[in-house]
Amino acid sequence: MDASVTAAVEVREQGRLALPPDMPDRGSGRRMLANALRVLAIDAVEAANSGHPGMPMGMADIAEALWRRHLRHNPADPRWPDRDRFVLSNGHGSMLLYALLHLTGYDLPMEELRRFRQLGSRTPGHPEYGVTPGVETTTGPLGQGLANAVGMALAERLLAAEFNKPGYRIVDHRTFCFVGDGCLMEGISHEACSLAGTLGLEKLVVFYDDNGISIDGPVSGWFTDDTPRRFEAYGWRVLREVDGHDAYALDAAIDEALTSCGKPTLICCQTVIGCGSPSRAGSADVHGAPLGAAEVTETRAALGWASPPFVLPEEVRAGWDARRRGAAAQADWQARFDAYADAHPSAAAEFLRRMQGELPESFAAAVDAWIATVAERAESMATRKASQQSIRMLASLLPELLGGSADLTGSNLTDWPGSGGRHLHYGVREFGMAAVMNGLALHGGIIPFGGTFLAFSDYARNGLRLSALMGLRVVHVFTHDGIGLGEDGPTHQPVEHAASLRLMPNLDVWRPCDVLETAIAWRAAVERLDGPTALLLSRQTLPAQQGADRVRDAARGGYVLTDDGKPDVVLIATGSEVPIAMEARLLLIHRGIAARVVSMPCCEVFERQDPAWRRTVLPDGVPRLAVEAGATGLWRATVGLDGDVVGLDRYGESAPAPDLYRHFGITADAVADRAQRLCLPQS
Amino acid sequence: MDASVTAAVEVREQGRLALPPDMPDRGSGRRMLANALRVLAIDAVEAANSGHPGMPMGMADIAEALWRRHLRHNPADPRWPDRDRFVLSNGHGSMLLYALLHLTGYDLPMEELRRFRQLGSRTPGHPEYGVTPGVETTTGPLGQGLANAVGMALAERLLAAEFNKPGYRIVDHRTFCFVGDGCLMEGISHEACSLAGTLGLEKLVVFYDDNGISIDGPVSGWFTDDTPRRFEAYGWRVLREVDGHDAYALDAAIDEALTSCGKPTLICCQTVIGCGSPSRAGSADVHGAPLGAAEVTETRAALGWASPPFVLPEEVRAGWDARRRGAAAQADWQARFDAYADAHPSAAAEFLRRMQGELPESFAAAVDAWIATVAERAESMATRKASQQSIRMLASLLPELLGGSADLTGSNLTDWPGSGGRHLHYGVREFGMAAVMNGLALHGGIIPFGGTFLAFSDYARNGLRLSALMGLRVVHVFTHDGIGLGEDGPTHQPVEHAASLRLMPNLDVWRPCDVLETAIAWRAAVERLDGPTALLLSRQTLPAQQGADRVRDAARGGYVLTDDGKPDVVLIATGSEVPIAMEARLLLIHRGIAARVVSMPCCEVFERQDPAWRRTVLPDGVPRLAVEAGATGLWRATVGLDGDVVGLDRYGESAPAPDLYRHFGITADAVADRAQRLCLPQS
Repeated sequence: MDASVTAAVEVREQGRLALPPDMPDRGSGRRMLANALRVLAIDAVEAANSGHPGMPMGMADIAEALWRRHLRHNPADPRWPDRDRFVLSNGHGSMLLYALLHLTGYDLPMEELRRFRQLGSRTPGHPEYGVTPGVETTTGPLGQGLANAVGMALAERLLAAEFNKPGYRIVDHRTFCFVGDGCLMEGISHEACSLAGTLGLEKLVVFYDDNGISIDGPVSGWFTDDTPRRFEAYGWRVLREVDGHDAYALDAAIDEALTSCGKPTLICCQTVIGCGSPSRAGSADVHGAPLGAAEVTETRAALGWASPPFVLPEEVRAGWDARRRGAAAQADWQARFDAYADAHPSAAAEFLRRMQGELPESFAAAVDAWIATVAERAESMATRKASQQSIRMLASLLPELLGGSADLTGSNLTDWPGSGGRHLHYGVREFGMAAVMNGLALHGGIIPFGGTFLAFSDYARNGLRLSALMGLRVVHVFTHDGIGLGEDGPTHQPVEHAASLRLMPNLDVWRPCDVLETAIAWRAAVERLDGPTALLLSRQTLPAQQGADRVRDAARGGYVLTDDGKPDVVLIATGSEVPIAMEARLLLIHRGIAARVVSMPCCEVFERQDPAWRRTVLPDGVPRLAVEAGATGLWRATVGLDGDVVGLDRYGESAPAPDLYRHFGITADAVADRAQRLCLPQS
Repeated sequence: MDASVTAAVEVREQGRLALPPDMPDRGSGRRMLANALRVLAIDAVEAANSGHPGMPMGMADIAEALWRRHLRHNPADPRWPDRDRFVLSNGHGSMLLYALLHLTGYDLPMEELRRFRQLGSRTPGHPEYGVTPGVETTTGPLGQGLANAVGMALAERLLAAEFNKPGYRIVDHRTFCFVGDGCLMEGISHEACSLAGTLGLEKLVVFYDDNGISIDGPVSGWFTDDTPRRFEAYGWRVLREVDGHDAYALDAAIDEALTSCGKPTLICCQTVIGCGSPSRAGSADVHGAPLGAAEVTETRAALGWASPPFVLPEEVRAGWDARRRGAAAQADWQARFDAYADAHPSAAAEFLRRMQGELPESFAAAVDAWIATVAERAESMATRKASQQSIRMLASLLPELLGGSADLTGSNLTDWPGSGGRHLHYGVREFGMAAVMNGLALHGGIIPFGGTFLAFSDYARNGLRLSALMGLRVVHVFTHDGIGLGEDGPTHQPVEHAASLRLMPNLDVWRPCDVLETAIAWRAAVERLDGPTALLLSRQTLPAQQGADRVRDAARGGYVLTDDGKPDVVLIATGSEVPIAMEARLLLIHRGIAARVVSMPCCEVFERQDPAWRRTVLPDGVPRLAVEAGATGLWRATVGLDGDVVGLDRYGESAPAPDLYRHFGITADAVADRAQRLCLPQS
């Protein structure tokens, strides 16, 4: 079972040299510039006594070729809308990116490189969006950066189609991405790259760091794909066997990749991991641990590098400085954009609004009016259907909304009449969809939403986590949100999912009970600037609830839906279980018990309200009973140990929905009985 | 963005016929036998008024060819160890499998088919392991059945290598799997099939239902892979363009697939979804909804099917009945096994023990003795290191243990000295690993465990869910279980993961605090017969705790670690936070407060103890404070609203571990302060 080292890898290992003999420098000094990346990575990892030197040393020549010769960016303005995007999907090689950002002139001083991986530095262990200028996305969880890059390239294409005008190309940039073996082993690479091939995203260029090594050693024991053939099967252009240490070969490959062919391009770069380290190059030892003082000295000697740690020769600084070139590139674009703005002023203003992520000025009033109508009409419908109505309304106000579904369009109801190209069929690719949506949001100009069944949020979970960690405005439409989906059975019935999503920091989870709460949830999702939202929606029809102040109150995440003066017990419910709580309240009236019903569509938003408000909803000293057809444990944070929860702590069954509610005892009778018990002092 | 229907699909759509004109029957009656599957599927879906007729109608001819001519199975004994395994990865076509099981003679009477998708039937909406005899795995979440099949084929190979002897082949069966476009779009298909190619699992044969349709419509808009080329890139043998409605072409393809070539085989079967339905064949409409009475009548007419629903002509019954052939096949094997048992009695007994999933008789005593030694030595070490010690010990007693890691072997410490071929490098494929482990466990004879970082349990989450739903003995080794992993930062630091895993029904989650609890957790994991276990393990060294009765008590999931008579407050901690609670206790003594420390390595096991025991650990009326460096909400189920939780409800940071604990206030001082506040009545 153990890895048997193949001939190919043996050759590579025999070639463990400080620099492969066939690495021409041709006296241009480019090797020295690449070595600056190597040495900075080594020194920072050494200072932190942790980190990953192998990848930066292996990809340094590729980085030099791309960043110095081809990447169009302006270190003084990392938010320039038409910059090329660069994604380091193999994010453990973060020091490569930090070295590039420092050297080309971003606001990342050497002091930050010295503080690599220290608390509060701008150089965390893996690249983090929002922490370091020039970092386009948070990477580390393998494969997702690649999918983000697909999303960015898609955003570019959509915005170019929407905003470019004859004679004016204001959206015209590339997305470049570095990936390693790990990214390509992950399933998400299949999902994202298959989709990118179908979509023909020709401005996406991916560099595969084909070094034959992953953490466990030579990949021949566990990863023997013919990767070029695989990507050709996806409809990509593949440039095979490019010497990843020959800057001129890389230049030629990049030049070819930039020619139009209607396909994304994979450049397969043959590299030596840890290139430059006399003893460790070509081995897994160099992947994720400091070289150690002795080997650092040897490596410096092998590279002919005389400067002490964190000190750079002036010619290296000069060779890397991209500020003038970057400023000129942006100035050129700005002149073109100004001309565009003269010719198409409203399109230009709209473009800037979109890229800044601002909602239109008229948005709030229009949505207010619409929500008032929804409240007045009070139609009974499934909340997935209500969601579709919301989407249709919001899409008429927000051209930046881009819908999609992981091959459940007709079930998730993410498409809408008149969507006209603003809905994407992601295919059966939940994780890929989540990460592509992150890329769309990161690029800017688009607010993505995508649907699948709530049970399959599991497939996408780490993609949701990254949107929450990065604070991206992405909307996850999760329909069929409980046993109410019925006959498809336990594999398709979420039980623990609502609670487990609520545990994820910075994700707002809405489970609306009717058409009005759905509209309010959607409004909150698109108005939220600092994080993603999950909408948990019913398959089955839910009655519209009543209440004068619901438009105001529901936006606070939890509120009194109905009350009869001083309550004996508070029933707290969400989504499809709100009608059950309402029915239980009527039963309790007949038993002489006054029950308040609290609808709690979004625990996170409720938790952010001031404590005084929360106490008006959940008064101290009144017993609480939560009702939700799912895992009960987390509800104890609301009802305490003195309260009770009617829920479901086991997997569901395959049967019609009404049978299941009865079978599992999630009924008005059961709620009334349990509530009554809470009101009676134990004898 | 919308799907543009390609020429290929157009051709197929033009060919929407009840039966494609080129479908030869050659008078053999095989078409009629296949039509029995079609009609049963239609009628059951119609009776349930929900379900998926399209796939069974499309794959009926393939099923006829495989099940009647090639599959070696015995309907009277679905547990026969050497049966061929059959996996329906596109599990929504469950009626195809139920029809096959009924017709070939399994204990699945027609009455059960009539109750398709009804509460308590043996014919749930998707195939469920343990519910229906002959169902080898639970499918429905797409792509996972395929990965299960990879695991089954791997189990066969490992057991054949271990148990077959010269002249005796007692393990010699195939694994067959049906997949659809959805399975092949899912990323897990990449992970599992890439691995299967590397491993050269030649007894795995996969039938691709290439019908060009997924739920959203013709796949040309979102799935344009050259799938044969993709699988060739994985090192598979691919049989292209097999007519999926020509039983003789299918026979020939299967014959070829059964020849040895050192590679798994993909048979690409071109089919028409819903084949037999005059109006709906070849369209997405037939995928997941009943045909309706009129179309059912039309379909019956087109198929020349005269029998009423759920009634079968006698010649159909006779043609399908596999009981005699199956009994003969098993008898033949039994005779060979008996001869093997004569020649190799201990190997034969061991094989039967392994396949029955029983532990060796000597196991309990040996483990008792070893755990006593662990308790006595009381070494301080990281629990991941303690886990490796446990593995080494258990592996010496249990040859069925098969380890592995998703390319983090040296970090997860899943390999052990002397493992000799009993450790698998899964590559960077967390989800694939989880689902392959499910397949290994389902096959029997192997207890699989596999490692990754806890943060990346997200990638594998639905695979864990299926092992929990199926009740499989699979052990998930999740190391680097919190901010204690330090510098890799928030992408790698689990915060919400422990709690979110605890929410998953039937998954036991252990987070041991030291070497002894780790040993006890491992023992519980391998002794557990009805579900999976997740072990959450520290990167950092943890001190050995003391206590006379810990060996007995820790096995109960939660227990008093230290106490000084009547406590003023109970500190409840897990894993790496237990030493912090212990230190806080000492601080509290100086403040005149008696704190009990409860170690709670496994909430689920503790919850299964009788209430009296639980009250001795957590006495009523004493305030409780939980300490765990993760999401706090779920701990309210233990401490209530009157208690407190020292935890972390935000994402981590990149920094050395001690800095992070200080930064986030998870320190003995903070715990002591918060505990003291709980003891003081609010003024």
